[in-house]
Amino acid sequence: MSASSPTSPRLPQIREDTVFNRLVIFSPARSRRPSDFKFHPPDGAPNNNPNPPSCPFCLGRERECAPEIFRIPPGTDDWKIRVIENLYPALRRDLEGSQVGDRGEAGCDEGRRAVIGFGFHDVVIETPFHSIHLPDLSAAEIGEVVLSYRERVRQLSNHGSIEYVQVFKNYGASAGASMTHSHAQMIALPLVPPTVSARLDSMKEVFDKSGKCGICEAQSANILINESGHFFAVVPFAASFPFEVWIIPREHTPYFHDLDEQKAVDFGGLLKLILLKLSKQLNDPPYNYMIHSSPFHLPASHLPCAHWFIQIVPQLNAVGGFELGSGCYINPIFPEDAAEILSYEEEDASGVGEPFCNKRFPEIYIDGTKNWLPQS
Amino acid sequence: MSASSPTSPRLPQIREDTVFNRLVIFSPARSRRPSDFKFHPPDGAPNNNPNPPSCPFCLGRERECAPEIFRIPPGTDDWKIRVIENLYPALRRDLEGSQVGDRGEAGCDEGRRAVIGFGFHDVVIETPFHSIHLPDLSAAEIGEVVLSYRERVRQLSNHGSIEYVQVFKNYGASAGASMTHSHAQMIALPLVPPTVSARLDSMKEVFDKSGKCGICEAQSANILINESGHFFAVVPFAASFPFEVWIIPREHTPYFHDLDEQKAVDFGGLLKLILLKLSKQLNDPPYNYMIHSSPFHLPASHLPCAHWFIQIVPQLNAVGGFELGSGCYINPIFPEDAAEILSYEEEDASGVGEPFCNKRFPEIYIDGTKNWLPQS
Repeated sequence: MSASSPTSPRLPQIREDTVFNRLVIFSPARSRRPSDFKFHPPDGAPNNNPNPPSCPFCLGRERECAPEIFRIPPGTDDWKIRVIENLYPALRRDLEGSQVGDRGEAGCDEGRRAVIGFGFHDVVIETPFHSIHLPDLSAAEIGEVVLSYRERVRQLSNHGSIEYVQVFKNYGASAGASMTHSHAQMIALPLVPPTVSARLDSMKEVFDKSGKCGICEAQSANILINESGHFFAVVPFAASFPFEVWIIPREHTPYFHDLDEQKAVDFGGLLKLILLKLSKQLNDPPYNYMIHSSPFHLPASHLPCAHWFIQIVPQLNAVGGFELGSGCYINPIFPEDAAEILSYEEEDASGVGEPFCNKRFPEIYIDGTKNWLPQS
Repeated sequence: MSASSPTSPRLPQIREDTVFNRLVIFSPARSRRPSDFKFHPPDGAPNNNPNPPSCPFCLGRERECAPEIFRIPPGTDDWKIRVIENLYPALRRDLEGSQVGDRGEAGCDEGRRAVIGFGFHDVVIETPFHSIHLPDLSAAEIGEVVLSYRERVRQLSNHGSIEYVQVFKNYGASAGASMTHSHAQMIALPLVPPTVSARLDSMKEVFDKSGKCGICEAQSANILINESGHFFAVVPFAASFPFEVWIIPREHTPYFHDLDEQKAVDFGGLLKLILLKLSKQLNDPPYNYMIHSSPFHLPASHLPCAHWFIQIVPQLNAVGGFELGSGCYINPIFPEDAAEILSYEEEDASGVGEPFCNKRFPEIYIDGTKNWLPQS
C-alpha cells in the first residue's frame, strides 16, 4: 500500500473504464492549480434547504402537484413517500401510439430518425418534510424509499412499450436539481439508449474474454470504502469524477427491481453512510446518483454479463470542452486516494474526532478553492 | 415551414444522433418551468474580462508562463498569438516510454488497464490583450488563430506516439475555463479515445448503409443558420444542447489540419458570426467548442466516411443524473427553433433593429431565469 499512499507523489495515468468504455486521465498536477478544482457554492450554501412558502412537495400541498401514482403507506394523509407524475415531463405518457407528424409537427426527412416523445417521467418525493435530506433518514426508511423506486420500476416494466428506466437523483442546483425538497426521478423510455447498450456490450466483451464480470471484480482492497452484508462500496478503478462511488450488490444480478426487502434495508444503510461521508468530507457537495440497471428485454446473450449498481457522482468541477469533445475525463484525484479519504471512520480506533480531510486538506472548508491534494 | 414555426405548439420527440450515437429528447414543456432553463451568472457577469493584475497570458508577462512552443509572428516581442505548454498539464510530455509502476506508483492488477500519463497539453493564447475576446478579432485574425491550432496539430501529428488531438475552447467559468484571457487548448493522446472511435464507427455505419456522410447531410433548410464559401453552420437535427451549432466544411475531408489558408479565413469569418450571434441572442453565455477531427492513423476502412467539423455548445443548463446515467440528453429547444433564432440577421431586410429574441423572448435579458419559449 505504500506506493498508493496519498502522501507519495503520483505520476499521471490513463486508465480504461471497461464498464463505460471510456478513458480517464488521472492527473494530480491539475489540482495544484486552485481554480481547477473547487466546490463553489453560488450563494454560500447551495444545498441549504429552508422551507420555502411554495414547495408543492411538502405535506399538505399535494393538490399542487401533478397526479399521484401511489403513496406509502397507501390510503393515508400521513404519507411517508409519494410517487407522482412530473409536472414538466421530458416525455409524455399520453402519446403512446402517436407518430411524428400526426399533429403537424416537424418530422424526419432525408433519413433522419425521430420518434414521438412517448414515455414516463415520474418523481419520488422521499419525505413529507422539506428540511429532511435523504441521508437524514434511517437505513430502514431509506430502504423504503428504494423500495418505492423498485415498485415504480416494476410497474413500468409491465408496460409493453417501455424498454428502459433510468432512476436518478439530482441534489443541488449545479447537479441539475430545480427543487430542494428531497426527491428522485425516473424516466421510462420506449427505446434502449445507445449508451446503455454500449455499456452492456462492453461488459459482455470483458465477460467473454476473461470469464469475469467487471462489476463483480470492482472490489479491490485499495479502492474499497465500506461493505455491508449484501453490498460493497468502492471508488471505481477508473472513476470519471473525483470521489465518485459505486455501490454494488454482491449478488451478480442484472435487475435493480429484483431487489428484496431485506437487501433494500441493507442497501439503505450503506447508501446513507456513503452520502454522509461525501457530505462531511466534501462540504455538502451537489451530487447525482444513477441506478444502472438493465433494459427490460435484454437479449439472452447479455443477461449473464449484466450486473446492476448505483453510481454516485459529487459535482465538484465543471466539465469542459475536452470531456465533451473526446469523451475522456480528467480526474485530479486517484481512486486509491479518494477511497482512503472516504474509508475514514470518525469513531473508529484510528480516529481523532475530526474528519480525515480536516487533517490532510485543511483549506477545503475555507472557501472551497484551495489546494487540497497533498503538497510535496 | 408552418409546421415548424416556433409559435405552433410542438410535441416532444426523441431523435437519434447518428454521429455521436445517442438519443436526444426534445421537450419544449421542460422549458416552461423557469428554473429548468436558465443562464445564471454567478456574480452577474461571469464572462466579464477585466484586466487582472496577474494574468500571465498578457503581453509582457511571457516569463510567467510555461515554455513557449511557437509564436506568431515568430521572433518578435510584438506577438499576436502564442502557443505554449500548459503549466498544469493533464498529461506529461516527459513521460514517453515510461511504464505504470516504473516509479513505484500504483499500477494495474486483476486485468485493470492503465498506461502512464504521457501526452501533450498545450495552450493557444489567441491575443496579447486581455480585453479582447475571440469574436472581437477580424475574420482574418481568427483565421490566423485557427491556423495556429492547425500548425500545432500538424507538429503533434508527426510525433510517432500520438494518436489523437482534441482541440477545444472553454469560455466562462461554468464551461470549465479557469483563465479569462482568450485562449484555446489541445490535448494530444497516445490512444484513440473510445468515444472518438465510436463516433467514427457510427458514421461508417451510416455511410455503409446509405452511401451518405451524416456530416455532409447535416445541411438542411430548416436548421441552416449561415453559409460561407467553404463552410456551413447548422443547428444539428439531434442537437444535444440548446443552441448547439456545428460549422462544417463543404469539402468532405477527415482532417482539420489539412485546412488551407484561404479556407481558414473563410472559417474565421463564419466562426466570428456564429459566436457573435450566440453572444447577442443568449446574453454572452459560457460556451465550449471542440474540433472533431480524425485520429492520425485512421484505418483505411474509415477514411472515406470521416468528415471533420467544429461543435459549439453554449452552456445554458446543468447536466443532471438522467444524462449521466442514460447518455441521453434533454433539449428544451427544437433545432428548427434555435436555427430560426440564430438565422436572424439584424441588418437584413426583415430586421427591426433589435435582436430577434428581444421580440419573441422578452424576458431573457431580465434575470436569465424567465420563460423564453413562446407561451401558448
